Amino acid sequence: MHDVVITGGLLATGAGSVHADLAIRDGTVAAIGADLGPARREIDATGRLVLPGGVDSHCHIEQLSGAGLMNADTFETATCSALMGGTTSTISFAAQHPGMRLSTVVADYEALAERGAMTDHAFHMIVSDVSGETLTHDLPALMAAGHRSIKLFTVYDKVRVGDAEILDVLWTAREHGGLVCVHAENDGLIRWMVRRLVESGRVAPHHHPISHPRAAEIEALSRTCRFAEFTGQPVMLFHVSCAEGVGVVREARGRGAPVVAETCPHYLFMTAADFADPPVEPAGLMCSPPQRESADQEALWAGLARGDLDLVSSDHAPYRLDESGKYANGRDAPFTRMANGMPGLETRLPLLFDAMVSKGRLGLDRFVALTSTRPAEIFGLTGKGRLLPGYDADVAIWDPAATRTFGANDLHDNTGYNPFAGRSVQGWPVTVLRRGEVVVEDGVLAARAGSGRRIPMAVSPAMTPQANPPAARLDP
Amino acid sequence: MHDVVITGGLLATGAGSVHADLAIRDGTVAAIGADLGPARREIDATGRLVLPGGVDSHCHIEQLSGAGLMNADTFETATCSALMGGTTSTISFAAQHPGMRLSTVVADYEALAERGAMTDHAFHMIVSDVSGETLTHDLPALMAAGHRSIKLFTVYDKVRVGDAEILDVLWTAREHGGLVCVHAENDGLIRWMVRRLVESGRVAPHHHPISHPRAAEIEALSRTCRFAEFTGQPVMLFHVSCAEGVGVVREARGRGAPVVAETCPHYLFMTAADFADPPVEPAGLMCSPPQRESADQEALWAGLARGDLDLVSSDHAPYRLDESGKYANGRDAPFTRMANGMPGLETRLPLLFDAMVSKGRLGLDRFVALTSTRPAEIFGLTGKGRLLPGYDADVAIWDPAATRTFGANDLHDNTGYNPFAGRSVQGWPVTVLRRGEVVVEDGVLAARAGSGRRIPMAVSPAMTPQANPPAARLDP
Amino acid sequence: MHDVVITGGLLATGAGSVHADLAIRDGTVAAIGADLGPARREIDATGRLVLPGGVDSHCHIEQLSGAGLMNADTFETATCSALMGGTTSTISFAAQHPGMRLSTVVADYEALAERGAMTDHAFHMIVSDVSGETLTHDLPALMAAGHRSIKLFTVYDKVRVGDAEILDVLWTAREHGGLVCVHAENDGLIRWMVRRLVESGRVAPHHHPISHPRAAEIEALSRTCRFAEFTGQPVMLFHVSCAEGVGVVREARGRGAPVVAETCPHYLFMTAADFADPPVEPAGLMCSPPQRESADQEALWAGLARGDLDLVSSDHAPYRLDESGKYANGRDAPFTRMANGMPGLETRLPLLFDAMVSKGRLGLDRFVALTSTRPAEIFGLTGKGRLLPGYDADVAIWDPAATRTFGANDLHDNTGYNPFAGRSVQGWPVTVLRRGEVVVEDGVLAARAGSGRRIPMAVSPAMTPQANPPAARLDP
Amino acid sequence: MHDVVITGGLLATGAGSVHADLAIRDGTVAAIGADLGPARREIDATGRLVLPGGVDSHCHIEQLSGAGLMNADTFETATCSALMGGTTSTISFAAQHPGMRLSTVVADYEALAERGAMTDHAFHMIVSDVSGETLTHDLPALMAAGHRSIKLFTVYDKVRVGDAEILDVLWTAREHGGLVCVHAENDGLIRWMVRRLVESGRVAPHHHPISHPRAAEIEALSRTCRFAEFTGQPVMLFHVSCAEGVGVVREARGRGAPVVAETCPHYLFMTAADFADPPVEPAGLMCSPPQRESADQEALWAGLARGDLDLVSSDHAPYRLDESGKYANGRDAPFTRMANGMPGLETRLPLLFDAMVSKGRLGLDRFVALTSTRPAEIFGLTGKGRLLPGYDADVAIWDPAATRTFGANDLHDNTGYNPFAGRSVQGWPVTVLRRGEVVVEDGVLAARAGSGRRIPMAVSPAMTPQANPPAARLDP
Repeated sequence: MHDVVITGGLLATGAGSVHADLAIRDGTVAAIGADLGPARREIDATGRLVLPGGVDSHCHIEQLSGAGLMNADTFETATCSALMGGTTSTISFAAQHPGMRLSTVVADYEALAERGAMTDHAFHMIVSDVSGETLTHDLPALMAAGHRSIKLFTVYDKVRVGDAEILDVLWTAREHGGLVCVHAENDGLIRWMVRRLVESGRVAPHHHPISHPRAAEIEALSRTCRFAEFTGQPVMLFHVSCAEGVGVVREARGRGAPVVAETCPHYLFMTAADFADPPVEPAGLMCSPPQRESADQEALWAGLARGDLDLVSSDHAPYRLDESGKYANGRDAPFTRMANGMPGLETRLPLLFDAMVSKGRLGLDRFVALTSTRPAEIFGLTGKGRLLPGYDADVAIWDPAATRTFGANDLHDNTGYNPFAGRSVQGWPVTVLRRGEVVVEDGVLAARAGSGRRIPMAVSPAMTPQANPPAARLDP
Repeated sequence: MHDVVITGGLLATGAGSVHADLAIRDGTVAAIGADLGPARREIDATGRLVLPGGVDSHCHIEQLSGAGLMNADTFETATCSALMGGTTSTISFAAQHPGMRLSTVVADYEALAERGAMTDHAFHMIVSDVSGETLTHDLPALMAAGHRSIKLFTVYDKVRVGDAEILDVLWTAREHGGLVCVHAENDGLIRWMVRRLVESGRVAPHHHPISHPRAAEIEALSRTCRFAEFTGQPVMLFHVSCAEGVGVVREARGRGAPVVAETCPHYLFMTAADFADPPVEPAGLMCSPPQRESADQEALWAGLARGDLDLVSSDHAPYRLDESGKYANGRDAPFTRMANGMPGLETRLPLLFDAMVSKGRLGLDRFVALTSTRPAEIFGLTGKGRLLPGYDADVAIWDPAATRTFGANDLHDNTGYNPFAGRSVQGWPVTVLRRGEVVVEDGVLAARAGSGRRIPMAVSPAMTPQANPPAARLDP
Repeated sequence: MHDVVITGGLLATGAGSVHADLAIRDGTVAAIGADLGPARREIDATGRLVLPGGVDSHCHIEQLSGAGLMNADTFETATCSALMGGTTSTISFAAQHPGMRLSTVVADYEALAERGAMTDHAFHMIVSDVSGETLTHDLPALMAAGHRSIKLFTVYDKVRVGDAEILDVLWTAREHGGLVCVHAENDGLIRWMVRRLVESGRVAPHHHPISHPRAAEIEALSRTCRFAEFTGQPVMLFHVSCAEGVGVVREARGRGAPVVAETCPHYLFMTAADFADPPVEPAGLMCSPPQRESADQEALWAGLARGDLDLVSSDHAPYRLDESGKYANGRDAPFTRMANGMPGLETRLPLLFDAMVSKGRLGLDRFVALTSTRPAEIFGLTGKGRLLPGYDADVAIWDPAATRTFGANDLHDNTGYNPFAGRSVQGWPVTVLRRGEVVVEDGVLAARAGSGRRIPMAVSPAMTPQANPPAARLDP
Repeated sequence: MHDVVITGGLLATGAGSVHADLAIRDGTVAAIGADLGPARREIDATGRLVLPGGVDSHCHIEQLSGAGLMNADTFETATCSALMGGTTSTISFAAQHPGMRLSTVVADYEALAERGAMTDHAFHMIVSDVSGETLTHDLPALMAAGHRSIKLFTVYDKVRVGDAEILDVLWTAREHGGLVCVHAENDGLIRWMVRRLVESGRVAPHHHPISHPRAAEIEALSRTCRFAEFTGQPVMLFHVSCAEGVGVVREARGRGAPVVAETCPHYLFMTAADFADPPVEPAGLMCSPPQRESADQEALWAGLARGDLDLVSSDHAPYRLDESGKYANGRDAPFTRMANGMPGLETRLPLLFDAMVSKGRLGLDRFVALTSTRPAEIFGLTGKGRLLPGYDADVAIWDPAATRTFGANDLHDNTGYNPFAGRSVQGWPVTVLRRGEVVVEDGVLAARAGSGRRIPMAVSPAMTPQANPPAARLDP
């Protein structure tokens, strides 16, 4: 006897959508099809869409920033927000700061997540210090233990690493099997713009986008692609925000560079012009890279349609609009002393569902692919991202007719504001299961803190390095 | 009770592979998973791969050529060959010649297929004459009846259409929902090269590749992409054979042109150099576009990996190496008077399986996508290309360990030779089902002529035209 | 003793400007420098610019169109207009129509020019019929006689040649030394647009630009570049009008294709929007390719700055705004039955001088290069385009301070209108010498009809074919 | 009466070549043409080529390296070598090291040159330290004084500057009028390769090219072009060595980036394979970027032909093959501790003349342009690079029939070896004048140390910044 059968819905398998029932046993999908036999519980999904739970492969949870600022969320609050928005798996960050031992850092974050997380989860290891045993011992050991995603920054003091260090990490990842994610913006260019803005008294939040010009992103994306090509080691380009960025990715892949790339809802649904009439205090919209222009939005959509961009993550980065968060240095602090980022774990899927499914842009199967199947596949999250027999029974049941208008503070994270306040969406994940367990039922949370499990990453095809890259040639 | 259950195999659904059983009822997939319940027949697929039957979207069957030459195959022989090679769906051609009424042409080919075909099947309508009611009545009516693929030639007397006619057909397809496939080579350039070759006495089969230079393909692909972009009407670029061709497709898509593209095994596994030491009489290797060079093969593989090329079809074009076929104008006829093409329905999947799955290039899921799922999806072959509940139970059960060396005349079509003779492959489709019926059992044909059904094409996403293309602007 | 010395001016030599006197003897430049010795006549050019006379390498004079329409100008009227605008050398057309013997055609035009031309002059041979002895005898003989420029059309009934014919002509030019100029627009695409416009009643002159979409130009330029690359034979791309056209040229050259390219003042100074508020009757603005948009103008200027475009010609094509010209088929004739083109021999240099020199865009040396030196160099006009010792003493003395506002009918050709009416320019060629003879003196014509000489073209570097092009490979 | 008249030669003016005499008065060209009148001295150049003296815009003379190593040449030896090879103007380096005051550095080098230089000369100011008054006072003052070329390194400890510093210097140059030259290689990538080579014991000179992979050059050129584009400030890309480098330049210019670029003879005439059979000790061939492959040579020539590369300089960097130079750290020192560079002031022109003029690649006028006219023009060397009235009478009289085979130690610098030993060239500068004074007569030096003058740079068109670059936008 099955544990659960979900009947009557349109089932998006991650491999095509069919009208079929879904049977769950022991937390995994037992079968899909018709007449699957009895179950302890039957959920009627008639008129609804039965989707793999969302996989959010880029979010900041309970993370200590380089500036010593703890973000607003605990694993409990953040993953509650994720589940309420239809996301059942998250990859957040284990952030090494210079001087910290990476293995300790990861163990600490694992402990936090074990205590609080309601989503199944994994980590990107932020490597900011390659000294000591980081490359020789910790990374290899951690990768063997299923921590296969490394995050590097080309920008930001304290976490930024130099080009030689990037190559070191790529070469280590190549040897042990992993994916190197990069926040790619040119550090010098941004510092130079910041200095000129500050010196001329331009320090409001709306100057932040100007301080991160597209040239900074284009340059660093290009450079990173060159490093991927040189070492043959796959790289994930985080948060591509502009048209030229999509072009850099497309061109690099055309040359054979092993790169994958993501974008985020705030680039698809916001522009820098939103600072002129923001739905919340302007500080609440600050992010890096910043929002761009409407032509960039079109280019990002085209990049998603063509597959130049592989997925859409939230880059959830929660800071409250008060002294504990954005205004830690005072309400009148210059933008350079305000934390970047905005909440997004809960809004990511509804915003994209509305645009892609309800309004018809790209359609249901691409929605599932970009928000669940591909991130699971790329990051080696075995069992996630599809509703096929043997996969984890992570399911989001969507009501395609439900409509909602976002409010100023209606999210379940701890940020206290919704940067998309005022927008209406059609389509909502009303019931959510995680490994067969109902964790959201008709919009009410039913999960327990700490019920999420860590997902060890497997070496995915997207992580597989290329044979004989230029870097391997040491003899004439 | 199910009709058939296939148990114990690795099931490739079309977008993800799982260890799962497959239950069939009434010719369709009833369920996939574990413990699917009893069935009248159980097929043990332990140690085997359970794949969607191949979809060969480009093959010439029982077709009268422009030169009045009937190709070697009937629907019975050709589709027998297809089934023996693991292909259960075919799209062949209904070839209008100037002066013929298109609706009659299609009806005639439908009748031939109804009598002989063992595969489920559809047609590309070769349009060579847009006069009369072709555009105003026949095409719209045929498209409404599910004939949604049109084939145009930019080359070859009698079937070649001019640029304005291409635009006419694109505009008609746009209005009624269809896909326009193009054999794109520059006619003038080829005629010019042919004349110079013939005038200088270079008339052997190995001169044929020289007569179709890559420049001819590059030019016509580029032009066709421009027309697709101008009208916003999707186009399928047939048989891309060279590196620059992949580049043209990639660049056109990067601009937003609605194009899809295919290549064929003879471009992936042969080069023009093979004419120097051919496994069969050289005439047996002639095809258009011709085989190119090894660097082109690498570029084609890269194009398949990136998705620049969407699928691999056989372009099966069967002419016997005798007076009924290649030598209809004499054994010593110049290459210009020999039919182009070679058999491929039966070898397509084993060659690709060997390269992609056994030797590991791109892997199982991409193999299935490129040879079954994507062609079915692009051409709107509802129910084909996936093994999910509700899909047709077209199944090829592969033995991944079986090896075979191709012989000189070991295929089940009527061509009498195998252009890949001497090559060895690992992996073979031992048992094949079509709509739940076993049509090949342990390598023995079990199908009846005429048992295949016509597949009406639906309007697929790949056929959906773009809004507001330049061609629509008639006012300043 | 010199015949003439021009003193005190700023002398633009064709590749560098210096303050120097210019001495003329026997029609050629004897010396440049200081203290050049006595002369029969001294012209004081203090405060003025002493420039090589303009070379207009693309103008239609006394030409019978394919539609049987004689254009408005005789050699006398057209070249008078040229001289008055500072142009001392012209290349107009000897237009073969199908059935005409090319050698006869050229002889006829030579006779017309000998009788009327006041400029030194050469011809582009329009080849529309490659049958008979055109390729085997006439072209080789004419090229040997210094007629080394051939003009082909890819568009327009009666003159249009097919792709194979283009290749024939390129191959002949390659063998005998010449340059093939191409009016490159896609014929089918234009005919298709024309039909749709006409069928929907859109037949006013302002519909003409819509009937020649940029896609038609882009396609045919691309194709022509491929043919140049394939044969290794240099090609001149006439009248590039749009941004993508510049891109096609740049990309083709980047690949190594031997192409040069021009644009014209009406593309630099007009847009299609000018039809909404035309300075003359709208029919007077019609040209092919048509004017485009302001972004295209910027791209053309950038192309000139970078050298992607080699020169600016007038494409002077004079038809009166009456029944003898534009309205030969009636004032209400559809645009398809109105002659294309506008006068430009006299306005080309002042418009460009104003933009480039007076307003500072690109500067004096580039002005001279683009309007005199480069056209002379490309077309092998020995002795033209520079003011160095031994060169012909073709001199235009410009007053950089003179201003003029164009009037409705103030040109010295026979067209009866000025399409640039209402525009003001700064800078005017006040005195003009041709081979040392003053032909315009303080704005008054002083030349005699028939005083111009034919300039035999030499084989220029720009005409030199590439070694071992793909077309030469006839063996494996 | 003229001081000198050079008669009977083919005069390459830098603006086209003519048969003309050249008259010199007071060190400048008085006139060119026929019958120029009497002179104190007549030089018969019948059968010879009369060319502008070469301008070598990139050479290291009497320079203290970052490693504290003085190069082998004094101004006297280096410029003697230059004159003997037909070069009359040089731009060498005034190298600031961290902590040095830039104004002092420049004054010191000026003094050295004033004492020793026989060529007219200017300096690139190497800026390695932007602290103190460098940007606010020294650079503006030096630029106003005609030191308008700045050199930056993205690589090499002690001189390398970061991205923000590069932007600072670009912005300063933009304000005051200058050109920023960049040695662009990725520092991190090279350090990373060096470390791996050294750690694996690969330390011979032939490992040096491997330590500077093309990826390092491509990346840094791309980045530099982005900075030029961002600031609108022109940049000179030094020593482009590989095919992709040419592509980066071409693409950047296509986007509108204000960049110019050079290459050097060792990239055109050597490859890395030369280390396998070197004409001198391998250490003598080491340079950065290193020599590449033969396909790169073809790409460089194509880039010169198209104008993607603007000039060819020597990058003369003289270190003796002994303990004073290359082996300062011992003969067995690893390549990382050997100075880079080779002598080239004297061989640059003969090597290029042989290839371009004698063997016909690109021709005489392009030879003059690439080696004299363009470098003079780009760097604002008023009076240099052309033989037109008013220009400095810097003349090299070439015997186009003279042949020479380079010997092991036949150059007039102080390096003691010729890296091109064994190569034969046709064409030699037999007599050289500098400002009208014969400084080399029939191959014998006739100049006096210190007779060269400093050339104040003017703000050239190539230095002119673009209006309104992205960097200027500080407000939304």
